[in-house]
Amino acid sequence: MTTTTVDGQASGRVSVLGLGAMGSAIARTFADRGYHTTVWNRTASRSAPLVEAGATAAATAAEAVAASPLVVVCLLDSTAVDEVLESVDAGVAGRVLVNLTSGSPAQARTRDRWVAERGGVYLDGKLMGDPPYVGTPNILIPVSGSRSAFEAHEPVLRELGGIAYHGTDPGLAAVEFLGQVAVSYEFLVGFLHTLRLMNEEGVDVAEFAGRVAGSLSAYPALLTSFGEAIKSGQYGPDLGSLNVQAALMDDLISHRESLGVEAVRMREVKDLMDLRIADGHGDQGFSSLFEVLAKRPGEVSA
Amino acid sequence: MTTTTVDGQASGRVSVLGLGAMGSAIARTFADRGYHTTVWNRTASRSAPLVEAGATAAATAAEAVAASPLVVVCLLDSTAVDEVLESVDAGVAGRVLVNLTSGSPAQARTRDRWVAERGGVYLDGKLMGDPPYVGTPNILIPVSGSRSAFEAHEPVLRELGGIAYHGTDPGLAAVEFLGQVAVSYEFLVGFLHTLRLMNEEGVDVAEFAGRVAGSLSAYPALLTSFGEAIKSGQYGPDLGSLNVQAALMDDLISHRESLGVEAVRMREVKDLMDLRIADGHGDQGFSSLFEVLAKRPGEVSA
Ligand SMILES: NC(=O)c1ccc[n+]([C@@H]2O[C@H](COP(=O)([O-])OP(=O)(O)OC[C@H]3O[C@@H](n4cnc5c(N)ncnc54)[C@H](OP(=O)(O)O)[C@@H]3O)[C@@H](O)[C@H]2O)c1
Ligand SMILES: NC(=O)c1ccc[n+]([C@@H]2O[C@H](COP(=O)([O-])OP(=O)(O)OC[C@H]3O[C@@H](n4cnc5c(N)ncnc54)[C@H](OP(=O)(O)O)[C@@H]3O)[C@@H](O)[C@H]2O)c1
Repeated sequence: MTTTTVDGQASGRVSVLGLGAMGSAIARTFADRGYHTTVWNRTASRSAPLVEAGATAAATAAEAVAASPLVVVCLLDSTAVDEVLESVDAGVAGRVLVNLTSGSPAQARTRDRWVAERGGVYLDGKLMGDPPYVGTPNILIPVSGSRSAFEAHEPVLRELGGIAYHGTDPGLAAVEFLGQVAVSYEFLVGFLHTLRLMNEEGVDVAEFAGRVAGSLSAYPALLTSFGEAIKSGQYGPDLGSLNVQAALMDDLISHRESLGVEAVRMREVKDLMDLRIADGHGDQGFSSLFEVLAKRPGEVSA
Repeated sequence: MTTTTVDGQASGRVSVLGLGAMGSAIARTFADRGYHTTVWNRTASRSAPLVEAGATAAATAAEAVAASPLVVVCLLDSTAVDEVLESVDAGVAGRVLVNLTSGSPAQARTRDRWVAERGGVYLDGKLMGDPPYVGTPNILIPVSGSRSAFEAHEPVLRELGGIAYHGTDPGLAAVEFLGQVAVSYEFLVGFLHTLRLMNEEGVDVAEFAGRVAGSLSAYPALLTSFGEAIKSGQYGPDLGSLNVQAALMDDLISHRESLGVEAVRMREVKDLMDLRIADGHGDQGFSSLFEVLAKRPGEVSA
């Protein structure tokens, strides 16, 4: 058990609001490691296994917040967090709230102000990994907000997983999270469409998936080189020159379309390549398409 | 030097048509490893460095085809291959042609018939990797077409990289190639859009790219499990249940749009999740979206 200092007050006390798959794993990790853990969940019955593991169940969210200087919140979504925090209201005074619920940077920034107005301190964190990984380094948790509150509670938070502090702007953990989730979803939904393509061609999808998995070892170096090329503006012919890559796109698109497989993204890639080649950069590579990802009017909302 | 038997004829002779970045690397690999290598390129001057490395330059493509039982073709695109092969025409009789130019399955199947009609044997292969990797296991080369021709020339082809035979249908190497390229492009164009998001948020893109690169170690197992789930139709809650994942999508989309970053694909992911949840499968995971990637009328061409 780690003893931390909050506002000069020694404490191994922590409260957890929300006992879904994630909140339960979080509360269990604290209880198992000897923290004086107070738990609350809207549906009270879900606290029973935690009480068995040594936690104390609070009757209301406000009671749970009152019980510990550090309060970890993990609910379904931002609306649920708003509802629960409104029920606590002035009770957040003097508390450090660490919200690990998924949500946007704007929500984190708004909530930071709301908590500060009531005399509390807000930290925003995001869970990148599945519930069974809570308590191991295999779940990554970007955190942002008050540096001093983060430093005071860092040892407690490190019990949960691989913590990385992203800065004082409370929105930064959500920026990291939404970026990482989007990279993952873009990859995976494209992968699913291509599995359908393989299926239509009579290729064994599990074997194809295994071959793609086997080819991923090239990507860490490739992604890193993309990031560096974009930062420096020095684009080499990564994945071959765009002139050579573009020659392939019509075949790729018409092959998908002939089998009824989605080709929207491949058409976008071709358009971007054509734009970049027309700009006189056909000798550069795929990473240089970053330069032509211009804001498109239809995409910008208020 | 490997001696192979073609139609009962012992030979260490190979011809290479096309001396661009790839064709030159291919011809150099053969010449360096002691093959009697004949080269031809439309722009004759590009054969000079190969002649210096021990190859023989042919004046015409037909002459190069006549010089060896095994002919490797590597040109810009399928149109270029058509043009060059038409100039050779009946000269392909008795030859094994291995076309390593990018192209579609349909083109491979058509070309296979064209070569067979003239008494030659066609193999189609695709290069997955960059020119410097030619001659190493780090370039993957799916090959398809005549099994006996493949087996006769396999040792020669293995000089070039990691050869995998995909079957007698000559289109299968292209199917594999177009599938792998699409998975890669879907991933990478999504990655570029998200780097723009990070850039708009003031995050260092090179550092973010490094963090994404660091998180790729989870993907081989994830992709393999997706392939198996789809093949068996048994979908677990991979990446969490769709109910939990969907709660995040509106935030993810509005965050991108508020910064003018493309969100087409994320809207598609949300629509797919909503469809799957409406079907009563909100407890399943991301891989189950495969089931709702239905053919959409607008996407199907003749
Ligand atoms: N599961 C994963 O794999 C995973 C991975 C990464 C991140 N996350 C994130 O972690 C967070 C929690 O996910 P989870 O898997 O624990 O979800 P979950 O198992 O569905 O649990 C949802 C929790 O939110 C509570 N809740 C929902 N609406 C509420 C409201 N209006 N007022 C009060 N409580 C409410 C539920 O209480 P009741 O018990 O009363 O319904 C329950 O405790 C989500 O933001 C999710 O995006 C999850
Ligand atoms: N470079 C890569 O990183 C890479 C990676 C994987 C796969 N590939 C594939 O490998 C193939 C070759 O690429 P590369 O990088 O070698 O391309 P390249 O350097 O641009 O060379 C193109 C070759 O095609 C020839 N050519 C073009 N049009 C022709 C025509 N109408 N008639 C006769 N010859 C013609 C060119 O001859 P001239 O010299 O006379 O112009 C040159 O030999 C492409 O299909 C490409 O998709 C390349």
